[in-house]
Amino acid sequence: MAPNFYPAYPPDLSREQQEYLLTNLKDWSIAHGLAVRPAPPYVQPQQDLSGALATTAPVTLFPSLFPQACLEQAKSVAKAYNELYSAIASDEGWLQGIVEELLEIDDFIADLWKVHLAVKAEGFVQPLNLGLFRSDYMVHVDPSASQASPTIKQVEFNTIASSFGGLSTQVSALHEHLLSIDAYPQSDLLANSSALSQSTSVPGLALGMFKAHEAYGRSTTGLPTCVIFLVQDPERNVFDQRHLEYALNENHGVKTFRLPFGRVLDDTKVDTNRKLIYSPPHAPNKHFEVTVVYFRAGYSPSEYESHREWDARIQIERSAAIKCPSILTQLAGTKKVQQVLATPHSPHLKRFLPDDAQAADVLKTFAPIYPLDKSEAGQEARKLATNPDTAARYVLKPQREGGGNNVYRKAIPGFLKDLPETHWPAHILMEMIEPPAQDNVIFRNGEMLKGGVICELGIYGACVWKTGEKDGERSMIESFEAGYLLRTKGSGSEEGGVAAGFGSVDSALLVDV
Amino acid sequence: MAPNFYPAYPPDLSREQQEYLLTNLKDWSIAHGLAVRPAPPYVQPQQDLSGALATTAPVTLFPSLFPQACLEQAKSVAKAYNELYSAIASDEGWLQGIVEELLEIDDFIADLWKVHLAVKAEGFVQPLNLGLFRSDYMVHVDPSASQASPTIKQVEFNTIASSFGGLSTQVSALHEHLLSIDAYPQSDLLANSSALSQSTSVPGLALGMFKAHEAYGRSTTGLPTCVIFLVQDPERNVFDQRHLEYALNENHGVKTFRLPFGRVLDDTKVDTNRKLIYSPPHAPNKHFEVTVVYFRAGYSPSEYESHREWDARIQIERSAAIKCPSILTQLAGTKKVQQVLATPHSPHLKRFLPDDAQAADVLKTFAPIYPLDKSEAGQEARKLATNPDTAARYVLKPQREGGGNNVYRKAIPGFLKDLPETHWPAHILMEMIEPPAQDNVIFRNGEMLKGGVICELGIYGACVWKTGEKDGERSMIESFEAGYLLRTKGSGSEEGGVAAGFGSVDSALLVDV
Repeated sequence: MAPNFYPAYPPDLSREQQEYLLTNLKDWSIAHGLAVRPAPPYVQPQQDLSGALATTAPVTLFPSLFPQACLEQAKSVAKAYNELYSAIASDEGWLQGIVEELLEIDDFIADLWKVHLAVKAEGFVQPLNLGLFRSDYMVHVDPSASQASPTIKQVEFNTIASSFGGLSTQVSALHEHLLSIDAYPQSDLLANSSALSQSTSVPGLALGMFKAHEAYGRSTTGLPTCVIFLVQDPERNVFDQRHLEYALNENHGVKTFRLPFGRVLDDTKVDTNRKLIYSPPHAPNKHFEVTVVYFRAGYSPSEYESHREWDARIQIERSAAIKCPSILTQLAGTKKVQQVLATPHSPHLKRFLPDDAQAADVLKTFAPIYPLDKSEAGQEARKLATNPDTAARYVLKPQREGGGNNVYRKAIPGFLKDLPETHWPAHILMEMIEPPAQDNVIFRNGEMLKGGVICELGIYGACVWKTGEKDGERSMIESFEAGYLLRTKGSGSEEGGVAAGFGSVDSALLVDV
Repeated sequence: MAPNFYPAYPPDLSREQQEYLLTNLKDWSIAHGLAVRPAPPYVQPQQDLSGALATTAPVTLFPSLFPQACLEQAKSVAKAYNELYSAIASDEGWLQGIVEELLEIDDFIADLWKVHLAVKAEGFVQPLNLGLFRSDYMVHVDPSASQASPTIKQVEFNTIASSFGGLSTQVSALHEHLLSIDAYPQSDLLANSSALSQSTSVPGLALGMFKAHEAYGRSTTGLPTCVIFLVQDPERNVFDQRHLEYALNENHGVKTFRLPFGRVLDDTKVDTNRKLIYSPPHAPNKHFEVTVVYFRAGYSPSEYESHREWDARIQIERSAAIKCPSILTQLAGTKKVQQVLATPHSPHLKRFLPDDAQAADVLKTFAPIYPLDKSEAGQEARKLATNPDTAARYVLKPQREGGGNNVYRKAIPGFLKDLPETHWPAHILMEMIEPPAQDNVIFRNGEMLKGGVICELGIYGACVWKTGEKDGERSMIESFEAGYLLRTKGSGSEEGGVAAGFGSVDSALLVDV
């Protein structure tokens, strides 16, 4: 991490200042639904059988510093990413090549592909697609440059169940509220609220769903229509989802239902025209034609315990409902796709983004990912990885999705020396992102954790597109940037995720660095 | 209770219907701050040292039935009650007579009166007053009439710390939401949302505070101004108060601070012009001129543990801040005043409400309260109380505020027979209010309680008035009805109060009976 990049921040708090800030944070968050259901050991399940307790979502006390130019850069490239990933998801032939490389090492991708092929054999009935994407970045400061400008580098691209959009709008409003009541000690950085970036993720994502709902067209069954939120059950992060649901109801008048993934086969059926029909358990004689299925479940192999879950996935995939995402769109989000696009001299980006300016903008956000094979890029990588000076800026990762241990920086040359060269191509070499260091205080599960933190910026993109008759054909119907997320975790931990680890939801205090 | 007065209600729920309703209720309530901090044994203090847990406020699953004419009657008399109680609070001489009758039996009232006299001796510097009142009623159906129309009868009148206005707006919105998502089984009574009365208590009470803040005028100290919420610490019902605070901030741009009653002497001082100056502990070098002190503490004798609390009360009372309420306004809310007004043939109502139509409207809402002395009304009462047939509609209560046991209905004649007649005047005879029976389901502390319930309607009134030079002189500056509260408790319990007992916050489903 680049030290001393940001000005000194946040200001120290006296005991009374901390109490004032925390009291207001705790009350405002619950009054505005910036909340989660508490996990053990904070609350044990047997203590709250009805699940009525809630607590403040993990949040930072202060908005974290973030370079204004980086946020603008990330937002400005959102529509190009919509183009890129909708194009990838519409190019089955190309995706097949990616999937084939993964079939033998990743059962989950193999099984998803089987579902896709089965539905393809039957024929698709819904050419419309909804993408609610989130492109995640870190600020990168080149440690070798003396006067480095910060840039953003992509960490990953999410095409399914991109979460925290519901809470992000609330946390930026929380920080603005705390500033407005003088809960932050006076500081040049916190002098005015215009430096606080308000996230539009709730209205943005709801608008994306509405645009797909609208594009679906009128019900042909004569039944009322609805949007399905496909969810895990139980779900601690339920308020994140509920804010999107309420916005879709209130801003757009769309009826919504939460459907646990495990109940798809109980509560839906596909009619002879392959319309997806939903019958709520509480009113089994009422039927709805489903326009959009928004996946907040079904993205992880652990959710597919038996044939039943796969049958459920097939049922949705073969239906006329607009899937957010379809299986092809989900597969476009695999790390392998990111790696192929980010390989130096890769021809793939141009294939999907023929507009040179767009492609150049996207390329700037890639951290280079090298294969360790005998290709041109592989030869470059071998040089970088075996020289301790250059290796210090890289991480060596196994090719297998999610498997094995990473080797970091100066340990790489020694590791490769001990590894037979025939095994080298099973790894990739990725440039380390070097986020600038800063401090903050995270409040989670009723406890405060103070110290160095790392921020990850997510930019939501919403798009509706129509795939054509021929593979690769596609027309974009709606495409817009849909707000941002700032997730912040202690810099001690290498793994992210607010729900899983020690992270928190944050908002950006823009600085000019 | 009048049986079979209301139609059959609420509809029965299947297991699936109940789950759908409850899941949506639990999520919506937290997403919208319809919440309280949980009490032991639900959550033990040592489990949540930072106090970050919250739970759904006690609410009814269904809006309770309420006669439309009764709600309209109660709202229509709100301004008359504002007149009545502001007039009483402006008539020190008359109030003195009431207080003198209570001095020997009620130390708290005696001590409040001493504070008033001490400030009076020094001279008052603030002629403006803010009343945020709540008049509480039950629906009464005369059991002796065969074709009885329901009317409202007053239970009590609150002039200090009238609570639940912050949550009431939210619970009526909750019930409307549940209706809009078909969480209620189809029923003629629940056929459309126009029968659901939405409470305007949050914007109404906030507007009342703003009107007083505005009437206070510009700061003369050159300091910024603020409104103080005087609160108990800790406070489980904090979100009820926060919603008012946020509305005052957002709708009217008024700065607010929460000041625990125990910190008044630490954080405020009265300057040479008797302006009340507040210095927040988190920013002790910042000072604010207090325009309005809104009491959500200091109403109960148990809060005055030492001289310190009385000194705090004096500090506020002698300051130029507008008190909501002043001590005279607080004393106007004693039960003794209610009793004196509601005594048949009482001349007092006319004294304060010279407008005959207003007085008649208010009188209709009184349940008669008789003395058992030798006056004309006392003679009537003796007849009613000694005849078992008529006694069946009354309750006999000791005169002493809050003390002793009540004697109900047919037990009264026997009780009086055994009591020496010289002791009879220590009691009052009050007509029993006969609320119609109905059922509902209360959700509190994560548990559901189903059964017969009784509803109590509260109507908020907001008014700003100026007392004149001479005792009894007064000019009304603002006066309006400020929303409603429906509190519902199991009909088994005779004591009310959502926070204290087994009650809940509810909303009104209007019926034409």
